[in-house]
Amino acid sequence: MKSEFEFIENLRTRYSLPKIGDDCAVLPKDSKTDLVMTTDLLVEDIDFKLEWSKPEFIGHKALAVSLSDVAAMGAKPVWSLLSIGIPEAVWKTDFVERFYAGWFALAKKFNVELVGGDVSRTPDKIVIDSIVAGEVKKGKAILRSGAGVGDLIFVTGELGGAAGGLKLLKDGSQYNSDEKIWRKHLFLKQLQPFPQVSDGRYLRENNFATAMIDLSDGLSSDLSHLCRASKVGAKIFADKIPFDKKLKPIAESFDDKIDFALHGGEDYELLFTVNPKKYFQAENEFKKCKFSHIGEITANGEIIELISGEKSQILQPKGFRHF
Amino acid sequence: MKSEFEFIENLRTRYSLPKIGDDCAVLPKDSKTDLVMTTDLLVEDIDFKLEWSKPEFIGHKALAVSLSDVAAMGAKPVWSLLSIGIPEAVWKTDFVERFYAGWFALAKKFNVELVGGDVSRTPDKIVIDSIVAGEVKKGKAILRSGAGVGDLIFVTGELGGAAGGLKLLKDGSQYNSDEKIWRKHLFLKQLQPFPQVSDGRYLRENNFATAMIDLSDGLSSDLSHLCRASKVGAKIFADKIPFDKKLKPIAESFDDKIDFALHGGEDYELLFTVNPKKYFQAENEFKKCKFSHIGEITANGEIIELISGEKSQILQPKGFRHF
Repeated sequence: MKSEFEFIENLRTRYSLPKIGDDCAVLPKDSKTDLVMTTDLLVEDIDFKLEWSKPEFIGHKALAVSLSDVAAMGAKPVWSLLSIGIPEAVWKTDFVERFYAGWFALAKKFNVELVGGDVSRTPDKIVIDSIVAGEVKKGKAILRSGAGVGDLIFVTGELGGAAGGLKLLKDGSQYNSDEKIWRKHLFLKQLQPFPQVSDGRYLRENNFATAMIDLSDGLSSDLSHLCRASKVGAKIFADKIPFDKKLKPIAESFDDKIDFALHGGEDYELLFTVNPKKYFQAENEFKKCKFSHIGEITANGEIIELISGEKSQILQPKGFRHF
Repeated sequence: MKSEFEFIENLRTRYSLPKIGDDCAVLPKDSKTDLVMTTDLLVEDIDFKLEWSKPEFIGHKALAVSLSDVAAMGAKPVWSLLSIGIPEAVWKTDFVERFYAGWFALAKKFNVELVGGDVSRTPDKIVIDSIVAGEVKKGKAILRSGAGVGDLIFVTGELGGAAGGLKLLKDGSQYNSDEKIWRKHLFLKQLQPFPQVSDGRYLRENNFATAMIDLSDGLSSDLSHLCRASKVGAKIFADKIPFDKKLKPIAESFDDKIDFALHGGEDYELLFTVNPKKYFQAENEFKKCKFSHIGEITANGEIIELISGEKSQILQPKGFRHF
């Protein structure tokens, strides 16, 4: 069965669609500015479950995932459209009020204005389409396709926390606000992820990143998308991956951590590449920002190697896919 | 239970959202141009049924309904994002290929470029979110709120055909290409509506319209939206309403026709108002364009009167609503 990535690549070729395939589409706005646009469809029981989350978190996450795409272009989010489809039984509850409260609380942090949307009835599941526009200096959006051989690979923040939270939920736990600290952290990484808009803009404004993508599907898949777009390969060093420290109680073995951090997805951190000459300028700054150097771009066409000590293995993209 | 219109009005007030509530949001693009943006969510078994339509028609209609919103601002459509959620069983068929073929066939007519989107899995129903951007001369988008007392009310085209097609489908008929002409016409008005982009742009470029809205929910509801936004009332003349001539075999009585034309919705024609002084300039042109003068804006705050001969009755908005 074709994956959604193959399907999109086919569309792109057949209908000549040069603007699709990155985290956002880049469109000309005025003489100094480009507009970047993204849309994310979230479907109940596929992307979220009512019994695992709460309406405020779902509203927050609907916006956060799109802000993360804008962040991955190095752009500043500016406005949004939000379509929501609701079964009649849910419409009669306080779900929509609380959903929008969660959405607006996050929107306020980034000065994102809601400019439109649509409300529809659905037969029995909630669907949300989140559309966010951002602005970036003309010609300066950071694409997936800019990585060069020898560039260093970095990630922001720590990885695997969102997958850890998902494991707690799948194992039958439910979030409540007086959880132990480590559990609360993991739950919230999954249910209320924070988009790295500031880091994205910082990297753009300083011209540090040659390519960037957000970590939504999982490091193994997202790095593979970036390598395909840039027509390069990569090697990453297992001992340099910044595992989420709060994972410890549920992922003691190295393989568990690797699974969470490399294939789990939904951390909404940023993965980016930096020219090594530029890195000498950035080294101290990057330490302050807690960016982790995890690997290097190679000429080994679209192959990703995972180096653990003396061992090297080919890393297959095992992140999230719908089909 | 609150309607979606009340809900949106509440959001608008509570969160101070001046840009929501028209057919499109109007956003500044550059020194000469505004961007208009719309999004329409289409849900299987609510907005379309697989057994009533075919994938090409669904793709066509997903784009057409958004183009119609752009038309209602007097803008030129330029690009689009398209999110689609599909159950796995449908993903394995040729549905998506044929859906996009229908979408692209219409997009080509208006030079609309697909710049992005999202593909997701759903548990069991198809959902589509269609997002279209248009461009219009700065400050010149035609809003719902511009109608003045004494303005004349017009519609493009003929009304009721889409509702007639829906009646055929609800009565158990299915579209096939060797239908009788009148039936084929009604089916296609419902399944493959054509957006009035040229008429919208013509009205804008000649500064003819003071206010405009597209006829998606039904004339009674859409005129009511326009009156509310403009803080005016209206009277319309039953004998001036351009009923779709192909309705005759299924709507012989006047009341049947009124139901189809006033409350049926989905004709995707345009409803607009014109200052009477301007109309003297436009009269001959309007005849060529087949625009019908159906009524007049009054000071009778948000009340719509339907005049039939000597009789006058208050027209309630009975068009489509989700909640």
